[in-house]
Amino acid sequence: MTTTLSSIPNDSRQELDRKEFPILSGIGSPADVRSLDPTELPQLCNDIRRFLIGQLSKNPGHFASSMGAVELTVALHYVFNTPYDRIVWDVGHQAYGHKLLTGRAERFHTNRTMGGLSGFPSPAESEYDTFSAGHASNSISAALGMAVATALKNENPKRNVVAVIGDASISGGLAFEGINNAANSNANVLIILNDNDMSIDHNVGSLNSYLAHLTTSKAYNTLRFKAYNTLRRTHLFSEKHRGRVLRFNNSLKSLITKEQNLFEGLNIRYFGPFDGHDLPRIIRVLQDIKDMNGPRILHLRTVKGRGFVPAEENPAEWHAPGRFDPVTGKRILNETTDRRPPKYQDVFGETLVELARNNPRIVGITAAMLSGTSVSMLRNEMPERTFDVGISEGHAVTFAGGMAKDGLIPFVAIYSSFLQRAYDHIIHDVALMELPVVFAIDRAGIVGEDGATHHGLFDLSYLSDIPGMTIASPRNEIMLRNLLFTAQLPGRKGPIAIRYPRGEGKNAEWRQPMKALEEGKGEMLTEGHDVAVLSLGPIGDIAAEAVREANRQGISTAHYDMIFLRPPDESILRKIGDSGMPVVTVEDASVKGGLGSSVLEWLSDNGYTNRVTRIGTPAARFVTHGKVSELHTLCGMDADSILKAITNANHPTK
Amino acid sequence: MTTTLSSIPNDSRQELDRKEFPILSGIGSPADVRSLDPTELPQLCNDIRRFLIGQLSKNPGHFASSMGAVELTVALHYVFNTPYDRIVWDVGHQAYGHKLLTGRAERFHTNRTMGGLSGFPSPAESEYDTFSAGHASNSISAALGMAVATALKNENPKRNVVAVIGDASISGGLAFEGINNAANSNANVLIILNDNDMSIDHNVGSLNSYLAHLTTSKAYNTLRFKAYNTLRRTHLFSEKHRGRVLRFNNSLKSLITKEQNLFEGLNIRYFGPFDGHDLPRIIRVLQDIKDMNGPRILHLRTVKGRGFVPAEENPAEWHAPGRFDPVTGKRILNETTDRRPPKYQDVFGETLVELARNNPRIVGITAAMLSGTSVSMLRNEMPERTFDVGISEGHAVTFAGGMAKDGLIPFVAIYSSFLQRAYDHIIHDVALMELPVVFAIDRAGIVGEDGATHHGLFDLSYLSDIPGMTIASPRNEIMLRNLLFTAQLPGRKGPIAIRYPRGEGKNAEWRQPMKALEEGKGEMLTEGHDVAVLSLGPIGDIAAEAVREANRQGISTAHYDMIFLRPPDESILRKIGDSGMPVVTVEDASVKGGLGSSVLEWLSDNGYTNRVTRIGTPAARFVTHGKVSELHTLCGMDADSILKAITNANHPTK
Repeated sequence: MTTTLSSIPNDSRQELDRKEFPILSGIGSPADVRSLDPTELPQLCNDIRRFLIGQLSKNPGHFASSMGAVELTVALHYVFNTPYDRIVWDVGHQAYGHKLLTGRAERFHTNRTMGGLSGFPSPAESEYDTFSAGHASNSISAALGMAVATALKNENPKRNVVAVIGDASISGGLAFEGINNAANSNANVLIILNDNDMSIDHNVGSLNSYLAHLTTSKAYNTLRFKAYNTLRRTHLFSEKHRGRVLRFNNSLKSLITKEQNLFEGLNIRYFGPFDGHDLPRIIRVLQDIKDMNGPRILHLRTVKGRGFVPAEENPAEWHAPGRFDPVTGKRILNETTDRRPPKYQDVFGETLVELARNNPRIVGITAAMLSGTSVSMLRNEMPERTFDVGISEGHAVTFAGGMAKDGLIPFVAIYSSFLQRAYDHIIHDVALMELPVVFAIDRAGIVGEDGATHHGLFDLSYLSDIPGMTIASPRNEIMLRNLLFTAQLPGRKGPIAIRYPRGEGKNAEWRQPMKALEEGKGEMLTEGHDVAVLSLGPIGDIAAEAVREANRQGISTAHYDMIFLRPPDESILRKIGDSGMPVVTVEDASVKGGLGSSVLEWLSDNGYTNRVTRIGTPAARFVTHGKVSELHTLCGMDADSILKAITNANHPTK
Repeated sequence: MTTTLSSIPNDSRQELDRKEFPILSGIGSPADVRSLDPTELPQLCNDIRRFLIGQLSKNPGHFASSMGAVELTVALHYVFNTPYDRIVWDVGHQAYGHKLLTGRAERFHTNRTMGGLSGFPSPAESEYDTFSAGHASNSISAALGMAVATALKNENPKRNVVAVIGDASISGGLAFEGINNAANSNANVLIILNDNDMSIDHNVGSLNSYLAHLTTSKAYNTLRFKAYNTLRRTHLFSEKHRGRVLRFNNSLKSLITKEQNLFEGLNIRYFGPFDGHDLPRIIRVLQDIKDMNGPRILHLRTVKGRGFVPAEENPAEWHAPGRFDPVTGKRILNETTDRRPPKYQDVFGETLVELARNNPRIVGITAAMLSGTSVSMLRNEMPERTFDVGISEGHAVTFAGGMAKDGLIPFVAIYSSFLQRAYDHIIHDVALMELPVVFAIDRAGIVGEDGATHHGLFDLSYLSDIPGMTIASPRNEIMLRNLLFTAQLPGRKGPIAIRYPRGEGKNAEWRQPMKALEEGKGEMLTEGHDVAVLSLGPIGDIAAEAVREANRQGISTAHYDMIFLRPPDESILRKIGDSGMPVVTVEDASVKGGLGSSVLEWLSDNGYTNRVTRIGTPAARFVTHGKVSELHTLCGMDADSILKAITNANHPTK
């Protein structure tokens, strides 16, 4: 049995049209790639690109990263003996081409759907997917582990291990720790830096001769490329960027494109930068360096969205563009009107701006999720009070701690599952000093198509064991605004976490004047005397549906929105305890350590023995990908399941 | 109210002898330091050293680091306007001198005792202690936050912010994230690298003229020191180190001592390296660079243990040497015989070696805690299978994941509170793939004198929300051996965490043949029918004491050692559930989310309503420093408190 909760696999296959995809349609596995004539490889790249455009225009997914990695992907499977040799993708936005070459093209139409392919490399799905790739910056450490394993086991033939890391991911402290340890080892690990942040410019011409020299002379050890310095310091400190903290990769670039090369300094042999779309050259370089010993880094420059002009021109928008017209490139946007409910992240973003206008102590921090968290709205209006620290969640939190220690009120907006990286920092650098940092936890709960690595199911648990942490979740957009308002009021002490889900709310009329909420005060939504339902967050709406139906069926069901997990509303809990009513708790999180557990603990500590049924995602299982509503059903968190729990609680079977 | 659980402060003061400490005895605050004549400062340093030797020879603490930082400490308080200017100490082993200069010399005899001074900088203790300093690598991020805050608030005069980071701490990914973000900002943050890993050698002579040039010409921007390259690559790859991953700082050194300077590459102005014991020079450099704008790094080389020859000669042993003779330097060791119970860490270390001899798949990993975890024992016998990754807990875990993915069984030995840094890595890079990584969690539970930042109270909680994680804690040394043996058996799947406390066990006859334990199987220690006590780990001995006394007093008290938190022993729980007995749970961890919570949840989920009293550290409070036994009493975890809980459970007052 696996620890991931999945539905029945969807093995539906769509054969590829041989005329439309003459080469790709013949690829059942990477062995087929390796048996191709080199002259056929460009057509394979072409097939992959057209296939991805066709598929992703209908079935949305991550687009631009994979488009930019097509040649690299083909070259890796052509040169290396996969799956014996290991390719470790970092993050995995770039890995769709890899999926197509490893026997999954016919199933690709199921990408990111329940029972279908995962949107990220997944070892449970394919032996070609060597490691989890949902959280950034882990590839080097994992690949180093594999390289050490192959050496210790004296495997024959020697297994090659390749980490493919994007330039954004390399800003994470974990990547640095990995590089550092790789540099100090003699492990056979090849780190490929897929540098897609800046386009190839004319200086690349001069690289070619360098490359030619490199691959013919094989005098690797002493080589350095000194002429390449298109990135000047002045770029890093342009007027536009002054006064804010930039993302790391700019710094890193200054290190690897100037005479002072970080990697050479760290004793890693460095090759590059090369044009990552020049397939014959990449293949030659890979062939030349693959049998070398020790840690090596290969720096490739690629264009995000390569091969689809609209995406090349606006790679950020085309990171995950949704549906689009494959011919014109026109994106098919959902109809929007002013009256449509906004995304929770936008309610947060807009409210943050509103609060910051009135409270000069407020600053906004995010970790490479400016648009994902809508902190971009604050950046647009107050760039000097907005800090995008790059992929470095730990730093984001400790940095916020330093700011809060000296009088600011930092709003740290990070996705729930990524904030796991900063668990210790929240404890040691914030909570221990009772600093007033506001954690705006986006993507909390089930996130849907991104799946197991991205669901935000553990935050209630890992936050509620931290002394002094206030934890809240709003049922709707208006309540989110009120919580954010409350969090920044003068005199409030200690950290507060406000979690809200991915996606849209329900209330088009959300721009209401804000008011302070009493911390630790919940709300009665429905009165009742047979069963009490306690919910936290927007899943309260689903609970309310079940409560309505239960009342219709004659079970007098009370419904309370707790709003605060910590401190809990003791008047509600005491009332319920005194009544002896069975309790059903409903939360969009693991049942282990969240609302249900806290209610149970409070009742027990206060001498009550009400029966408690806890509804949430299962404690012992990760949750697969699919639509949020499908996953609610899978986890028993839909209205029907809640209704059933209410009915059972009313007439316990035991 | 504070969130830290403390006893009544111990404000006992011992006046300093004016003859013995002519200058130090007159220092009530750093303002007094600043009013000294510069010629008096060497005597102040001398006073501090003799005071520390005298104090620490009697009342053990961290010794060598603070001895090496004396001149730096005096210089900082002499040059900067503390506490208005901020000094952020990293880790804080180095900060005793700082405590002496900031009004705490007379209370220093209470260092690390309950109610007395904390062994680390603590903002709750003094306004001069600007930030938590128990976990490494956080100083740069925190200082950057403070520097940004002072800029945004337009404070006048401008506040200087200084981070003082040791060379070991700079290997942490967090430090890298901090440096990277500092480099990309224009914040006025000064980073002082206190480089005490290698002694000052004769090349330092040539530095002096460089320094003279530096401080007179003030042409800072273009300066580089090119002659200094005592560290050659060959040092890094000597025969001795071949085959294992070295700690980072070697790499870093190659970066900052060669022409390629990491910091200059990152656009941080770099000054150094300078002799950190040359007080007049440090003061001049600090005065020169303190009013410069933007991020700066000052690299000082110091000698750990400086001023006390035995410590200079063997700084690792003198990191925290215990009691010693202040004249001869002879360490006063506890009497040891073969018959004495060992430390838990040594049982682990020796057992690991024994297992590794028979199982070639086993490797050992630690994060700069080779001797602290006794992984050093494996290193001594099998260096090629031992990996000290430096201070980088996240990498340690992901690296282990990569190794486990390719067939090894990594034993990752990290202290409980430091493993918090790797929480996400455990989830994403190990548990999600069900990899057989063994987490040997040392220093779990209350650790005593190191206090709030070092207690390992949250591991049961943060691990038990991770799907697929097996969690166990042995009651004694023999059981620890059996658990370690069980963890590496062929065919066992998924990660397992084995937690054990700091310090000695109780069993001198612990070297018994090992046997496999059934996972999820506890042990009945005492039969009874009135109250059931469930315990986990060595605190079971204290519980047993209470159980004995309860039975003596006529309360028929059962006692079960659960051994496994996950999976739980359902036969025990069912039996107790069926009996309806009140339950008292006892664990050396936060009551939030550990054994007590899990028992409560299991009983509730299975329809039982036994009353449960949970004993452990409080959910809402951090725990102060002191002797373990004192802290047990403070937290209500001593035998008397447990007995009281048993008595109350038997005759509930409510």
